[in-house]
Amino acid sequence: MSNNKHTPTAALDGIRIIDLTQLLQGPYATQMLGDLGADVIKVERFRSGDLYRSMTFFDEWIEGTESPCFMPWNRNKRSISLNLKCDDGKAVLRKLIQSADVIVENFRPGVMARLGFSYEDVQTIKPDIIYCSASGWGTSGPYVSRPGQDLLVQGVSGAMTTSGRASDGPVAIGTALCDQVSALNAVYGILAALFHRQRTGQGQLVEVNLLSSAIAFQMQDFFTIQNMGRQFERPQSGIAHPGNGAPFGTYKTLDGYIVIAMGDWHTLVEALEAPHLEKYADSKILFEKRDEIFFEIEEITKTKGTEAWIERLLSFDLWVSRVNQQCAVEHDPQVIHNETFVDVEHPKAGRVKVTNVPVKLSKTPGKIDKPAPLLGQHGKEILSEVGYREEEIAALFKGGVVYSQNEENAL
Amino acid sequence: MSNNKHTPTAALDGIRIIDLTQLLQGPYATQMLGDLGADVIKVERFRSGDLYRSMTFFDEWIEGTESPCFMPWNRNKRSISLNLKCDDGKAVLRKLIQSADVIVENFRPGVMARLGFSYEDVQTIKPDIIYCSASGWGTSGPYVSRPGQDLLVQGVSGAMTTSGRASDGPVAIGTALCDQVSALNAVYGILAALFHRQRTGQGQLVEVNLLSSAIAFQMQDFFTIQNMGRQFERPQSGIAHPGNGAPFGTYKTLDGYIVIAMGDWHTLVEALEAPHLEKYADSKILFEKRDEIFFEIEEITKTKGTEAWIERLLSFDLWVSRVNQQCAVEHDPQVIHNETFVDVEHPKAGRVKVTNVPVKLSKTPGKIDKPAPLLGQHGKEILSEVGYREEEIAALFKGGVVYSQNEENAL
Repeated sequence: MSNNKHTPTAALDGIRIIDLTQLLQGPYATQMLGDLGADVIKVERFRSGDLYRSMTFFDEWIEGTESPCFMPWNRNKRSISLNLKCDDGKAVLRKLIQSADVIVENFRPGVMARLGFSYEDVQTIKPDIIYCSASGWGTSGPYVSRPGQDLLVQGVSGAMTTSGRASDGPVAIGTALCDQVSALNAVYGILAALFHRQRTGQGQLVEVNLLSSAIAFQMQDFFTIQNMGRQFERPQSGIAHPGNGAPFGTYKTLDGYIVIAMGDWHTLVEALEAPHLEKYADSKILFEKRDEIFFEIEEITKTKGTEAWIERLLSFDLWVSRVNQQCAVEHDPQVIHNETFVDVEHPKAGRVKVTNVPVKLSKTPGKIDKPAPLLGQHGKEILSEVGYREEEIAALFKGGVVYSQNEENAL
Repeated sequence: MSNNKHTPTAALDGIRIIDLTQLLQGPYATQMLGDLGADVIKVERFRSGDLYRSMTFFDEWIEGTESPCFMPWNRNKRSISLNLKCDDGKAVLRKLIQSADVIVENFRPGVMARLGFSYEDVQTIKPDIIYCSASGWGTSGPYVSRPGQDLLVQGVSGAMTTSGRASDGPVAIGTALCDQVSALNAVYGILAALFHRQRTGQGQLVEVNLLSSAIAFQMQDFFTIQNMGRQFERPQSGIAHPGNGAPFGTYKTLDGYIVIAMGDWHTLVEALEAPHLEKYADSKILFEKRDEIFFEIEEITKTKGTEAWIERLLSFDLWVSRVNQQCAVEHDPQVIHNETFVDVEHPKAGRVKVTNVPVKLSKTPGKIDKPAPLLGQHGKEILSEVGYREEEIAALFKGGVVYSQNEENAL
């Protein structure tokens, strides 16, 4: 607003998000808003909290209790653990909404309405609210009552059929592709809606779902399939895309792997010192014989180490890189230069490393100033901010309406 | 602005984007802004245009000339083909920038400065400009002069080491993961910057790069590796995530594949009618013996068809879905219900199917009202809009400053 007394130093300074999400899609979206300065109030289930707190990898935990699933998606948030099944809890949520700009939820469709907090309900509390519903399949339709989860949507959206080899079955993408892309789409919708509200005063409903997001993410593939009438078929070799010819792929070296992407074929043949490969210099042949060509190239790349190949191929201006294992990424010189990882202090897990905000804004830089919260850690201060007096707060804790994992903070 | 005469019907109505991008990262970002109503002016290389116009899949083309790589990322844009190597061309770009809110570029670092259009230069033309630079590795650092492309960044970012099986080498994700995630991050940064400008009048520089985006997309993995000191190891079976235990995976049926995600083990054992699997009911065992358990489950799923399994497992409230081939996705009942694909008329390719905007905004819905442009298709109208008179426009075309593929439009 032009009547702001000071220029905000964060893009979303002063914007309050009521975050009724759990697991991954919703939490990642609200975290991205928090990273740019929004005040994200995570409203968690009474006592049990976000389901992701109880999930982990390798059946192990950080410091015995903290989850590597929950923690990466919930920094820059404050937590209040609220019993939404009782009237007093609903009254607290109404107060929170009155103070908010945006509400985000990723319950199964219908749950918010049953709680009395549908978009229509919330508009009566805060007429210009931006209300984001993030679901698995959409808010209506044949799958609406089915569980909607990343891996299931990878299956339905076709995303499992483009990675890997011809002889493989479906190959899942080993990261939560659908959840995360849909989170990014939610942020897209919410920020556009905030901009619109800033220009017009009008709030609105923003809807995203995993399925539409996963399909939109493959739009180039669908465009090709639907408008060329051809199906992608995965190669048997290490050619890295089902629609591409050689050399586009990952090749063994003496001590690891390199990627060779695009580049002039003659130049590559020269750089590989392999004049016998010159015969393939035709885009049709490079596609049709891609597997045969791949293995011919790999016979050569296997004879030298990764560093030697990178240096040589780069000197020919060919598009090449190393392949890092995930554990090597933090030591990569460009990653270090980019300050990709930063430390933050967590009340139970101690000093933890987190991935920095990947976007740089020169005037309003993002920053990570809070670790993932303990369950209900900020309940007292949040209640106080929205106008509850000390004795009312005490009553809410005693009455089983608000819960805090942190005893001292609780009362 | 509160002094707007009418309420915008699109969130980005009236926002002009000067789009100096090519290939995928930049074009997808600007397309997402166009989908919400921004006026995206694609400034393409004189005569040759976006490099993606000359790339395709299967060594085939749509209607002999049109690219299935270029078309999906350039709808909702207008094109002007401009010679930026001459002073008259630069003068045109300056005029365009004067009329703009945002400029987006994805040249290699340094190119914009050499052309005379660095962020500092552009600020002298339009002081409150939002200037987005999208690069491969970042704008400085050891890799700054290297080619930065999706597959190369998949390699360096570790993204190739989480999909596929233990015995596989690196498995590339068969879609342009890094480009597309970085495009989504660019949109995140640009929209936040637009919101900030709307509140304060202040423009800024927004920087994204493929590498930081690809790493941020794996933040859960990096959090786990760096803070638990464990490395993810891919399973040999169809278990779908290197950190997860059974049953999370894709299983053969009599006629296809199903996905089984999370769910209570006892319930799954009951639904599979497999009491001999009850012995695995322990989270540690489900992780450690995941491959063995996977194959035991698959022995059972192989005995019935996909539809039968989906119906049965859903009736137990288990998390299950089918696996669609990409060509089957458009026929999936939920995809049809969601109106995921829409038609648009292209001047050369005719009626083409495109993927709809995946986010629904109730008051300012996105829409697709323009197909991908022909090269320079809108040069004349754009020049006219920024104040060039008819004879000046004719001179620019004749003088080799502006080019149009569409003869009629050219003059």
